Amino acid sequence: MTATYSRSAGRAAAALRPVRLQRGFTCHAEGSVLVSFGATQVLCTASVEDRVPPHKKGSGEGWVTAEYGMLPRATHTRGAREAAKGKQSGRTQEIQRLIGRSLRAVFDLAALGERTITLDCDVLQADGGTRTAAITGAWVAAADAVGRLLAEGKLARSPIRDQVAAISVGLVEGTPLLDLEYVEDSACDTDMNVVMTGAGHFVEVQGTAEGVAFSRTEMGQLLDLADAGIRELLAAQRVALGEVAQRVLPAAA
Amino acid sequence: MTATYSRSAGRAAAALRPVRLQRGFTCHAEGSVLVSFGATQVLCTASVEDRVPPHKKGSGEGWVTAEYGMLPRATHTRGAREAAKGKQSGRTQEIQRLIGRSLRAVFDLAALGERTITLDCDVLQADGGTRTAAITGAWVAAADAVGRLLAEGKLARSPIRDQVAAISVGLVEGTPLLDLEYVEDSACDTDMNVVMTGAGHFVEVQGTAEGVAFSRTEMGQLLDLADAGIRELLAAQRVALGEVAQRVLPAAA
Amino acid sequence: MTATYSRSAGRAAAALRPVRLQRGFTCHAEGSVLVSFGATQVLCTASVEDRVPPHKKGSGEGWVTAEYGMLPRATHTRGAREAAKGKQSGRTQEIQRLIGRSLRAVFDLAALGERTITLDCDVLQADGGTRTAAITGAWVAAADAVGRLLAEGKLARSPIRDQVAAISVGLVEGTPLLDLEYVEDSACDTDMNVVMTGAGHFVEVQGTAEGVAFSRTEMGQLLDLADAGIRELLAAQRVALGEVAQRVLPAAA
Amino acid sequence: MTATYSRSAGRAAAALRPVRLQRGFTCHAEGSVLVSFGATQVLCTASVEDRVPPHKKGSGEGWVTAEYGMLPRATHTRGAREAAKGKQSGRTQEIQRLIGRSLRAVFDLAALGERTITLDCDVLQADGGTRTAAITGAWVAAADAVGRLLAEGKLARSPIRDQVAAISVGLVEGTPLLDLEYVEDSACDTDMNVVMTGAGHFVEVQGTAEGVAFSRTEMGQLLDLADAGIRELLAAQRVALGEVAQRVLPAAA
Amino acid sequence: MTATYSRSAGRAAAALRPVRLQRGFTCHAEGSVLVSFGATQVLCTASVEDRVPPHKKGSGEGWVTAEYGMLPRATHTRGAREAAKGKQSGRTQEIQRLIGRSLRAVFDLAALGERTITLDCDVLQADGGTRTAAITGAWVAAADAVGRLLAEGKLARSPIRDQVAAISVGLVEGTPLLDLEYVEDSACDTDMNVVMTGAGHFVEVQGTAEGVAFSRTEMGQLLDLADAGIRELLAAQRVALGEVAQRVLPAAA
Amino acid sequence: MTATYSRSAGRAAAALRPVRLQRGFTCHAEGSVLVSFGATQVLCTASVEDRVPPHKKGSGEGWVTAEYGMLPRATHTRGAREAAKGKQSGRTQEIQRLIGRSLRAVFDLAALGERTITLDCDVLQADGGTRTAAITGAWVAAADAVGRLLAEGKLARSPIRDQVAAISVGLVEGTPLLDLEYVEDSACDTDMNVVMTGAGHFVEVQGTAEGVAFSRTEMGQLLDLADAGIRELLAAQRVALGEVAQRVLPAAA
Repeated sequence: MTATYSRSAGRAAAALRPVRLQRGFTCHAEGSVLVSFGATQVLCTASVEDRVPPHKKGSGEGWVTAEYGMLPRATHTRGAREAAKGKQSGRTQEIQRLIGRSLRAVFDLAALGERTITLDCDVLQADGGTRTAAITGAWVAAADAVGRLLAEGKLARSPIRDQVAAISVGLVEGTPLLDLEYVEDSACDTDMNVVMTGAGHFVEVQGTAEGVAFSRTEMGQLLDLADAGIRELLAAQRVALGEVAQRVLPAAA
Repeated sequence: MTATYSRSAGRAAAALRPVRLQRGFTCHAEGSVLVSFGATQVLCTASVEDRVPPHKKGSGEGWVTAEYGMLPRATHTRGAREAAKGKQSGRTQEIQRLIGRSLRAVFDLAALGERTITLDCDVLQADGGTRTAAITGAWVAAADAVGRLLAEGKLARSPIRDQVAAISVGLVEGTPLLDLEYVEDSACDTDMNVVMTGAGHFVEVQGTAEGVAFSRTEMGQLLDLADAGIRELLAAQRVALGEVAQRVLPAAA
Repeated sequence: MTATYSRSAGRAAAALRPVRLQRGFTCHAEGSVLVSFGATQVLCTASVEDRVPPHKKGSGEGWVTAEYGMLPRATHTRGAREAAKGKQSGRTQEIQRLIGRSLRAVFDLAALGERTITLDCDVLQADGGTRTAAITGAWVAAADAVGRLLAEGKLARSPIRDQVAAISVGLVEGTPLLDLEYVEDSACDTDMNVVMTGAGHFVEVQGTAEGVAFSRTEMGQLLDLADAGIRELLAAQRVALGEVAQRVLPAAA
Repeated sequence: MTATYSRSAGRAAAALRPVRLQRGFTCHAEGSVLVSFGATQVLCTASVEDRVPPHKKGSGEGWVTAEYGMLPRATHTRGAREAAKGKQSGRTQEIQRLIGRSLRAVFDLAALGERTITLDCDVLQADGGTRTAAITGAWVAAADAVGRLLAEGKLARSPIRDQVAAISVGLVEGTPLLDLEYVEDSACDTDMNVVMTGAGHFVEVQGTAEGVAFSRTEMGQLLDLADAGIRELLAAQRVALGEVAQRVLPAAA
Repeated sequence: MTATYSRSAGRAAAALRPVRLQRGFTCHAEGSVLVSFGATQVLCTASVEDRVPPHKKGSGEGWVTAEYGMLPRATHTRGAREAAKGKQSGRTQEIQRLIGRSLRAVFDLAALGERTITLDCDVLQADGGTRTAAITGAWVAAADAVGRLLAEGKLARSPIRDQVAAISVGLVEGTPLLDLEYVEDSACDTDMNVVMTGAGHFVEVQGTAEGVAFSRTEMGQLLDLADAGIRELLAAQRVALGEVAQRVLPAAA
Repeated sequence: MTATYSRSAGRAAAALRPVRLQRGFTCHAEGSVLVSFGATQVLCTASVEDRVPPHKKGSGEGWVTAEYGMLPRATHTRGAREAAKGKQSGRTQEIQRLIGRSLRAVFDLAALGERTITLDCDVLQADGGTRTAAITGAWVAAADAVGRLLAEGKLARSPIRDQVAAISVGLVEGTPLLDLEYVEDSACDTDMNVVMTGAGHFVEVQGTAEGVAFSRTEMGQLLDLADAGIRELLAAQRVALGEVAQRVLPAAA
């Protein structure tokens, strides 16, 4: 893997941008985390409600879901406000479905009971990787919400089976890069978002050739990069949660 | 005016909550201000675009407009996302129209030229007074955007004629209070939002009796309170802007 | 107060346009009033339904609400039909919320029982002041509906605590004017809508500087004008209702 | 044809309800007619605009179109406001398409020039036959608008080729009835709306079996009734227009 | 009736295009029929659900309804997808209301029990007459669904009282033509859709003058043509159903 | 790879369902293909229009896009019609974006010129794998459209750079399976959609763990299966196109 593309601020091809997971960013939500991957900033809140969607009613199981939004001026040029346009774009819906599936992959819905945890992921500032930052931050917000349910005695044991985090990787001018910034994302031939559990298994792998199609070998390189990056993010999640991590994660995790 | 209602944190009836105007909160917008009135936090961004709405095309004049939103979990209980519902509530539209009118009241649209400044006011955390914080913060964001246009030589002189700021006042259990928090707002008989210019004139006065109708005398007391509170906000705006205030405001202001 | 602006038809600055409150204009509604303020004509119907919105279910209380519309050719140039556009404008929503709040201010919702009174205010012809005419006419329609509920024995006592009426005032070329026509409204610097009860207290005061901001003194002049105008409207309401007024209003009113 | 069904107010099976065509009902529109067929009242306004829809641009031809609405409390029980629901019902769209086609059938669009005449038909009070009243009234409103264009010299000759009017007929308990009221319409087995020109030709025939299917013989009886009724309406239109009728209709008509 | 207009493929004025009713076209629906009138192809599926719309709840009666759609490229030039536009056109709604009424005219809703049969009519290829093909095919699909309910013992007797089929007729250059193709439909002066029962009675007659209004005599000619054409379609329905026809139709039909 | 899951009809774990690519299924579109993967049937039409979306105007480049829909009764139980609901689901938008990206990956947009090819993929019958069938069929429809543009001399050389096809693979009870049917898709732990070019490179890889997360080894097994399956589909595309394949594909492909 010979890196030929030169990244901003001298970042190495396999380096994450500075990651920050700031808990308690807002005060009302059961979990509230401002996650930053470099200049990308996403506010992830976890809201607990004592009701479930129709398809779960009377099942004894709970539900975990996500919504995603971007403030109009989170981006270089102002985007139209989706509430004003009267509908969410296909991109927005695709991302919020991805976040919801990723979180559900590590939740024991029966152990959650008939409750819904909604993860609202709102991008305050965008510079590439908003969906992967959102997944990574949403898991911390969800853990805080579960920690509170445990502390209040509303749950006897944690419904969280494992951690989950996500990162983007891509091929830019033939170079495999970790954690793409906006300019890299725009220039890349292949863009891949990878979601992994604490156990190192895949929850989602979404690779897209924007320009040239990619080979099996290139795919292997990208997955290697993503694997290493996600391990760093998983560690950052545990550090950010401190002793809450012990309480919400299974003993073995 | 004998205050009988006891406010949280021992706040006096005529006292503002701590006010903070944090410029440059996000990096892409021409102006970006996080305004806090106590626990109420609104991100106000000013975006400059070289086009105007149809009714201004070819007029030589610019336009100043606003959009308002609230993150789903800015509030005690989660509210539905307007983008998902597919429409903005009447309350949202009413507030964004108010912010837009308030800002236009101090703008010389001819001096702005055929440009639009859009003020996006997104509530990150709500505890009463989101619209007044939005107006107060939006003016600072607009001033920063104008400062940049002047610095870049795109404008020869500032189109800002004066400052504008806003505060809420209300009668709670017969006591006139300045800058209502959420619990006070819910309990009040009369709620009034006042928007004033740096010159001390009214741009908007919106008084509403939620319970008992209010007398002319009570209205006078509320306007006195608002007047004093807004003067403090105007000073806070100038302090926050520092030397930019000199450049965007007329010499006499 | 030196009137310098010359009004159409030689109207004095402090004079209302001819007011007409024509009851029973249509036959199906429990109350149906065509209200005219000069050339402005609004059809106000009151509909009684034996159900309440979700937030009142099981509360033992009723609800009073309003909807507002304008026929496409009520105005000088044809406006788009909101039903065809698929949404109500911000202006429409703002006005119907105002009418609803104004009517609720004089209703004892507990005394109404679990019923909803919906006031539909549809502008047949517009010449300024449609929202104030609507409030003034809607109260008469509501009174007729209550009169019918009393006559039918569905209510033992009237839930109406007081009258409510509204008028616009404004500063046009420095002159305070009562009850603005369309041309005056377009030309005015300040436009204020005032809603008052029979007891002479304010329910709503909404003052907006369209051009130059207004001073405390000017606001006082406008409120004086509005107060006098509304007293005339309150008298007109009682005259229009005849003996129904005695039955629906409290003895002391 | 033995009438066995007994109509309200002793009306004969072949009798129209009282018809009224009140011109100049509102003041802004180029034509404004309140049409009454008994208790059914529809306000028909004709608006002239100097633009045409995309499919007519540059064709030298004009366009005639219609929109239909019903005030929420035009009916016995309040119906939801279409603007609030955010869409027009299938029934509304079907009716406004019918009105538009009917009017276009008697218009020479080339003679109209690149102009649009929009007929807004808003039902103030409904008691059956709103679409037929709307067509009958809309033609008078359109004639008034054309009269004004001729008077102002904007048109050299009238684009109106003939009159058009409409009536409903139906089989109620086996009896053919003209001009159905709401209770008759609800009870009828077959409901037919017939639109005819001044020359006595059909523009639209829409017969629907609500219950029992109808025979060719019954259809003949219904068309006979409709033919006679429409001739009365055509006369009423000419009477209402007075000398305007001479100016807008071809000499031979 | 002297045919002067020359039809494609030498078709006689009174001739139907080749009719095909292909049952079991798709596998999931309780009834699934691909109906072809020449190049017009409509897929009609009948879906049975054990619930009824609100207005039938608890009535013991069932409901029969229809929805209509056209694939974007069913036509010569691509039309916008209604799901993408976010609303169904007036034309679509008009047609699906017509199909629903036509089917209900031959259904005994009480005998159906509290069930809904939904007829989805989706045009795969359009060449005129899509609504008449849809009605004709939908009846066969509904019959298959009823046949299955009888076979499964869910119904003791058939709720189908009669057959129903439909055809278009029109005047093209003065010639009355049966079963109009797209080019004929575009050229015709009068277009009439006729829906008839097996007993030879009318369910719907919808005649529209696109250009010149039509006389009573012409209407008679068109109805004669339609009558003969529909008898052929009714026969084709029985042939297509084979022995199912015996089971779902009353003995006398 | 020991297959323990027993597939319907004795299908081998690595076997495709019968594949059919029926060209010319409808007559108006420039390309029209009914693709079947077993019981899954998707009608793919390619429409050529001489205009491009705004972001391509004046660029000299064309555009390739896709829309996806499912007939209400394509599935076991009837789904709501998206046109009637007024919006496309997140799933629909996600799929149509995937189809569009996949096709664009093999198109030289500059060689296409300022034209748009729209691929409409409408599911007539669903049994798993609708999106992969759609991509596979859409490419054939696009090839037919390009073949026609070449034949008509509107294009000098083909803008198609390669073939593209897609298949689903998944882990069901630990067994890797190719081309999942609906029952397998519902039961699977991991579901992966793979899109590949004729050159054997990836355009899209979308793997999702529905239940248990998947390992790197399992991912390898799934990609092997997909690779083999797609090679069969690419062959089927060339067979279906016959000599058109030679004309639209580059010599080397």
